[in-house]
Amino acid sequence: MGRVSAGDTVVMVDIKGKRYLLKVEPGSRFETNRGYILHDDVIEKAYGDEVYTNKGFPFLILSPSTYDLIQSTRRVTQIIYPKDAFYIVFRLDLYSGKRVIEAGTGSGAFTAVLAKAVMPDGRVFSYEMRESMIEYATKTVKNAGVSNLVEIKKRDIREGFDEEDVDAVFLDLRTPWYYLDQAYSALKPGGHFGCLVPTTNQVIELLKAMKEHKFGDIEVEELILRRFKVVAERFRPEDRMVAHTAYLIFARKLACRDAGSWYSFRMGRAWKNKLPSDES
Amino acid sequence: MGRVSAGDTVVMVDIKGKRYLLKVEPGSRFETNRGYILHDDVIEKAYGDEVYTNKGFPFLILSPSTYDLIQSTRRVTQIIYPKDAFYIVFRLDLYSGKRVIEAGTGSGAFTAVLAKAVMPDGRVFSYEMRESMIEYATKTVKNAGVSNLVEIKKRDIREGFDEEDVDAVFLDLRTPWYYLDQAYSALKPGGHFGCLVPTTNQVIELLKAMKEHKFGDIEVEELILRRFKVVAERFRPEDRMVAHTAYLIFARKLACRDAGSWYSFRMGRAWKNKLPSDES
Amino acid sequence: MGRVSAGDTVVMVDIKGKRYLLKVEPGSRFETNRGYILHDDVIEKAYGDEVYTNKGFPFLILSPSTYDLIQSTRRVTQIIYPKDAFYIVFRLDLYSGKRVIEAGTGSGAFTAVLAKAVMPDGRVFSYEMRESMIEYATKTVKNAGVSNLVEIKKRDIREGFDEEDVDAVFLDLRTPWYYLDQAYSALKPGGHFGCLVPTTNQVIELLKAMKEHKFGDIEVEELILRRFKVVAERFRPEDRMVAHTAYLIFARKLACRDAGSWYSFRMGRAWKNKLPSDES
Amino acid sequence: MGRVSAGDTVVMVDIKGKRYLLKVEPGSRFETNRGYILHDDVIEKAYGDEVYTNKGFPFLILSPSTYDLIQSTRRVTQIIYPKDAFYIVFRLDLYSGKRVIEAGTGSGAFTAVLAKAVMPDGRVFSYEMRESMIEYATKTVKNAGVSNLVEIKKRDIREGFDEEDVDAVFLDLRTPWYYLDQAYSALKPGGHFGCLVPTTNQVIELLKAMKEHKFGDIEVEELILRRFKVVAERFRPEDRMVAHTAYLIFARKLACRDAGSWYSFRMGRAWKNKLPSDES
Repeated sequence: MGRVSAGDTVVMVDIKGKRYLLKVEPGSRFETNRGYILHDDVIEKAYGDEVYTNKGFPFLILSPSTYDLIQSTRRVTQIIYPKDAFYIVFRLDLYSGKRVIEAGTGSGAFTAVLAKAVMPDGRVFSYEMRESMIEYATKTVKNAGVSNLVEIKKRDIREGFDEEDVDAVFLDLRTPWYYLDQAYSALKPGGHFGCLVPTTNQVIELLKAMKEHKFGDIEVEELILRRFKVVAERFRPEDRMVAHTAYLIFARKLACRDAGSWYSFRMGRAWKNKLPSDES
Repeated sequence: MGRVSAGDTVVMVDIKGKRYLLKVEPGSRFETNRGYILHDDVIEKAYGDEVYTNKGFPFLILSPSTYDLIQSTRRVTQIIYPKDAFYIVFRLDLYSGKRVIEAGTGSGAFTAVLAKAVMPDGRVFSYEMRESMIEYATKTVKNAGVSNLVEIKKRDIREGFDEEDVDAVFLDLRTPWYYLDQAYSALKPGGHFGCLVPTTNQVIELLKAMKEHKFGDIEVEELILRRFKVVAERFRPEDRMVAHTAYLIFARKLACRDAGSWYSFRMGRAWKNKLPSDES
Repeated sequence: MGRVSAGDTVVMVDIKGKRYLLKVEPGSRFETNRGYILHDDVIEKAYGDEVYTNKGFPFLILSPSTYDLIQSTRRVTQIIYPKDAFYIVFRLDLYSGKRVIEAGTGSGAFTAVLAKAVMPDGRVFSYEMRESMIEYATKTVKNAGVSNLVEIKKRDIREGFDEEDVDAVFLDLRTPWYYLDQAYSALKPGGHFGCLVPTTNQVIELLKAMKEHKFGDIEVEELILRRFKVVAERFRPEDRMVAHTAYLIFARKLACRDAGSWYSFRMGRAWKNKLPSDES
Repeated sequence: MGRVSAGDTVVMVDIKGKRYLLKVEPGSRFETNRGYILHDDVIEKAYGDEVYTNKGFPFLILSPSTYDLIQSTRRVTQIIYPKDAFYIVFRLDLYSGKRVIEAGTGSGAFTAVLAKAVMPDGRVFSYEMRESMIEYATKTVKNAGVSNLVEIKKRDIREGFDEEDVDAVFLDLRTPWYYLDQAYSALKPGGHFGCLVPTTNQVIELLKAMKEHKFGDIEVEELILRRFKVVAERFRPEDRMVAHTAYLIFARKLACRDAGSWYSFRMGRAWKNKLPSDES
């Protein structure tokens, strides 16, 4: 419990915070700018302990988290930031056992996050056109240890999705407004639709198109993450930050004849009867 | 699939967006300001469909999400907002099978979110002193259908936690700096520590105390959620927003003799070797 | 110095922070919920001192600032918030002696701010179509003591502005893209153009139109003001805030044949030789 | 009108947005990476027009604004950002004719902004200990053309300020809480106090100290500036931004015996009678 075994993937952190992913293999050597570390010296160490290079420089050993998984994925394509990824998962109400469609797959980092969320018995169907991305994402998903939950499909999604009655559909595409029919068809009644786009023009285009489809309870949101300097004596925000990643759009598949009335409301304040009080 | 059954809990939304939680029971009547709805008229309806009061006013039927669960919990105590709740879950790297300690339990809404995250075989140990909160949270957790994953314990946590080698400890307390020893003892090596406090004074106090304990890789973050008006022709942020909920502090339990070097780094930019490229 | 004279306009603040504007007139009575105050009791008081109602409730006496002027203007129309107003003034490079055009006048609060900025010998030309607004704004400007610097004109600005070679033009209109010719004509070469619009659709429309006109060095900005709880022991942001007021667009009138190259750059980092070093 | 004269200081902008300050002197040459420009070719050009290097590369000619003045000042010391500078000026209610004290002077950029605001007959008294800063600031102020309005004084302000009954005092110091007595003494009754500090610890320290002095109507604010990409077809915020510059603290000098009741209120909503309606 809590100790490194041969075959583990670990995070090695140097004194300045540089992080390296390392698959621990007996007999191997991890080369750094400041000397090397024998993998055998890492095995049996506790997570959270240090190990030293042959020149005496310390490295911290940590277990990789889902957060690390995203952070460490190479930016082969536009990545979904952790703050957005985690929020989307819950807004689409994904947890153990759910079935979700994603298009496109991209680097596979968000695919892996989706798979972690629906573990151990849910399923992620991820569509992608670009062969190189499929290859890349397949590795990402394998590295995350969730290959058994993910199906990556090469498909022009104009032809539609294979699945029906899925719990959620998430579109990470340049022109999501062209695929609303396909998303609608794949969703179960009341199912969750989500979309991520970086520009206001795309949001505007999407909102227009959604009027022509039976989606309702639409919301558009943006998450801003502010980091702080970790100094008790001079506590303040960091000097610079990521100012914008994307707008997030969420909606529900409607099953009524005329969807117009349910296009959008202002949420969150209007809860009337509350959960535990129901029971009392 | 996708239809309401007797016994389901559903969300009923009126034309203005007011939401009501409803446990559907044959023979019952749902009274509204605009007439009543027979539960029997709701049964067998598709989710995402409408139902009408006897006076002809429509209501939309939706399935309740984890997000709804938080939103609909009565504010009997300070609540953790969804944006924060979802982020914390992933920053503590909680997914199927993980074991996590929470203190205090409060309304139980976040307890239920934790349980959803570690379904179906993880475990949430939640500590609370106030009898009334325990009662309330027990109902919240039951309503969320995750009672089997949660243990709520009445305990002054100065005495410590029962569990050992847990994957994560989350403190939602006024004075978390007094309980760092207890958190440290319960965590497995390298385990995830998280904390939520509303004021800068509390962050400062906590950061000072963490210097005296073997926690490392500390980060302090704040999430800001901005909603937008869902109007394609006049797309813009809402006029007013929640300006502040809380500061989030994350750290790892260290196992090395001298933890000082690992207190804090600037994360996220410093990844050196990236996942899929490792394999190629 | 620093004492109230008959005829002064003062701000009276009650214990909860409610503010009242009061023109001090000997013999008058200021009626409040908690008794009355004799104006004669206010005269000769120092600013920053208290005065009591006949029932013993204290009021604080302050001098009204330009900030108060804006805050206290009735919302007869959409108002420009102080944070935006002050920033616009400097971004248009308005100070003593400058001549500026504003359209439309609205409540006159921003007109007064412009006048304060160009005191004592500058000039504000403010255009407005609605008779009621002109009347209202005339009073606002008079109350601010800057009537002598302001000309409010009733005009459909499609016909153009009377002035030429002004230092700056500021448009606070629903459809500013229709008036770029008029703005261009009134400005001096290199003069400052500014505009305020609340929606992204308007910004997009304006940016498109500006491509067809000789404006350059365009910037679009948004200012967000966060207030904090003034409590040393629990220092934190306020719970709620104004999330959005408007987007601010700034540009310069170009005089070259082909303006396309100068449409927009990323500013602020690119300064090469710095001021005082020039001289050394 | 609107044309460059010999002796003018102009801003030269290259095609990528790099900016150069240039004092135009007949017979001189402006050397660039892409060839040189004869100052004589700039003279008589309209502002907003182009001029070409001997190699045919265009430069745009603009007049320098107060905004440029700040942006172009070398970071010899921590600078006050324009967004903050402009807001402070108005929150201290500075306009033509006002007298203001500043400590410390720093690079002189904000000193010049203050001077611009109180032109032509106000006065800025600026205190600074560091000889090198005084020299530097003297040049900044001269370059801004406002030397006649500014007095820079070398002084340890623990000894107090020379002036009395000034309209405003602004402290830009590491430990402003040590100088509240001095600030109080220099201010006229009801006068405006302002302060800028980067960390929350400093705000907390200052708020504590202000309880022991007769300051009231205290407010703490933070301004966040978000820039947008100036692209009509892909309108969105910039990717990265300045996350934090400083907290701004404003207060009024009180003249009453017991200042405790007036320490702080929540402003801005509580205006009771509104300006123009008074008159009607």
